[in-house]
Amino acid sequence: MRNVALHRVRYAETDQMGVVYYANHFIWFEIGRAEFLRAAGIPYLELEKRGIFTPVAEAYCKYKTPARYDELIEVDTSIVALKGARIRFEYEIRHHDTGVVIAEGYTVMAFVDRQGRPIAIEVACPDVFEKLRSVVTESRWGAKHHG
Amino acid sequence: MRNVALHRVRYAETDQMGVVYYANHFIWFEIGRAEFLRAAGIPYLELEKRGIFTPVAEAYCKYKTPARYDELIEVDTSIVALKGARIRFEYEIRHHDTGVVIAEGYTVMAFVDRQGRPIAIEVACPDVFEKLRSVVTESRWGAKHHG
Amino acid sequence: MRNVALHRVRYAETDQMGVVYYANHFIWFEIGRAEFLRAAGIPYLELEKRGIFTPVAEAYCKYKTPARYDELIEVDTSIVALKGARIRFEYEIRHHDTGVVIAEGYTVMAFVDRQGRPIAIEVACPDVFEKLRSVVTESRWGAKHHG
Amino acid sequence: MRNVALHRVRYAETDQMGVVYYANHFIWFEIGRAEFLRAAGIPYLELEKRGIFTPVAEAYCKYKTPARYDELIEVDTSIVALKGARIRFEYEIRHHDTGVVIAEGYTVMAFVDRQGRPIAIEVACPDVFEKLRSVVTESRWGAKHHG
Repeated sequence: MRNVALHRVRYAETDQMGVVYYANHFIWFEIGRAEFLRAAGIPYLELEKRGIFTPVAEAYCKYKTPARYDELIEVDTSIVALKGARIRFEYEIRHHDTGVVIAEGYTVMAFVDRQGRPIAIEVACPDVFEKLRSVVTESRWGAKHHG
Repeated sequence: MRNVALHRVRYAETDQMGVVYYANHFIWFEIGRAEFLRAAGIPYLELEKRGIFTPVAEAYCKYKTPARYDELIEVDTSIVALKGARIRFEYEIRHHDTGVVIAEGYTVMAFVDRQGRPIAIEVACPDVFEKLRSVVTESRWGAKHHG
Repeated sequence: MRNVALHRVRYAETDQMGVVYYANHFIWFEIGRAEFLRAAGIPYLELEKRGIFTPVAEAYCKYKTPARYDELIEVDTSIVALKGARIRFEYEIRHHDTGVVIAEGYTVMAFVDRQGRPIAIEVACPDVFEKLRSVVTESRWGAKHHG
Repeated sequence: MRNVALHRVRYAETDQMGVVYYANHFIWFEIGRAEFLRAAGIPYLELEKRGIFTPVAEAYCKYKTPARYDELIEVDTSIVALKGARIRFEYEIRHHDTGVVIAEGYTVMAFVDRQGRPIAIEVACPDVFEKLRSVVTESRWGAKHHG
């Protein structure tokens, strides 16, 4: 499964180079995975209500073309790995009008409880695990890409 | 009592107009009041540990001159009112090198407990109240300024 | 004229109090006025292309109820004053589902050129001025509110 | 050469998990490289004044322990590669009091002109290149780490 979320670039996100500051792409990744999870029937908020938190363990972004103020951009999100207490999301950010790629990247998240201890999601919440497992797809970039 | 905190303007804080985006001044206000409270012997973190939270009820900023990347700025903070479950901080942000004013403003904060219910700080934590009361100063701008 | 823009609260916008950090409301004001101007036929980007910039001169927000992660919020925006080189926007932020008010506030913006010098918009860009003038409405709060 | 920059964690940087939101670490990387360049005698602002800009081409962060509100953290920065139109910075973020690692990562930046075209820094600004080259150190993690 893939899911595409839309976002309008704000003034707050630009910097004095006239383009979007590089940390914002990681916030766009968050938009992507929130909408992905909602579309997959597992809103992140429900995970937290069930005592499951997903701090980020790794984050990577490759910047290809600048994003500019007021552009409509899209975040194309997928889950490409799910094992043990970890899940890996991949993202491609594109200019909505042209499809030109702005950035691509991934995040690895851990499943932990409220105290920050790892959770074996498969055991602790088999229904969530099953839903997640059913939407895992192959990586767009495969092994060539960043460990 | 007044307290002056320093901050170096970051690239992340600028926007495509080439100056600092206006929401960041409110984050600088936060730096100002955190350092004020530390200097007054009441680190904000200790308030939270004692179950006192201070959500912002009102915030105002008047922008006088732009702040730019890499400038050293200073946030001059004071408490100008303390009554019931409310406290009012005032701020003047200046270019550190020239003293030229960048912005001035205020925030009003409420004292609440973990559930968000108002706390009469004077009754609940008389020692905190007394420390705060002892550092209240007159408003720099007085009644002329914003309600 | 009023315009209502929607926004989904992100994790990045929350703080450790479990609610949205107070500076983010000013970014939501930006969303409000960008969508207002677009709806009024004067996209902000076109203003900049014509050499008109609108730095914020004053900003105020009164916080009424917390906004929380993943909520859909709406920013109801209007222009309530336009004179000389200044324009005043008013905002009401509400929970989209219930209509309960999260915050209300205003910003005053100046019209300046690329060098930051004030522009008499009425003279310099009469077509823009006329469009803006035609959508001015009365203040929701009137004189009772913040200077 | 290594350079260590200090930063006090702000409330604005936390999220409802009670720790620092993951995009902020990339802003801390910016603090690290700004202070590194200043210490190396090449303030970033001067690069821009000479028409050299350094957009980020790649960014990576591995999160090891959470950072919390009001902690003093340090960003230990070095340059580990410099070739053609690219430069690679490495960062280790630590709790200042304990030295415990919060995160480690890198950014790759391009040298471009105001129009975004690649600059061969060695040819265009040999003095800058020489200063940068003289402070390149070996990677802390070597080849084992992230492409």
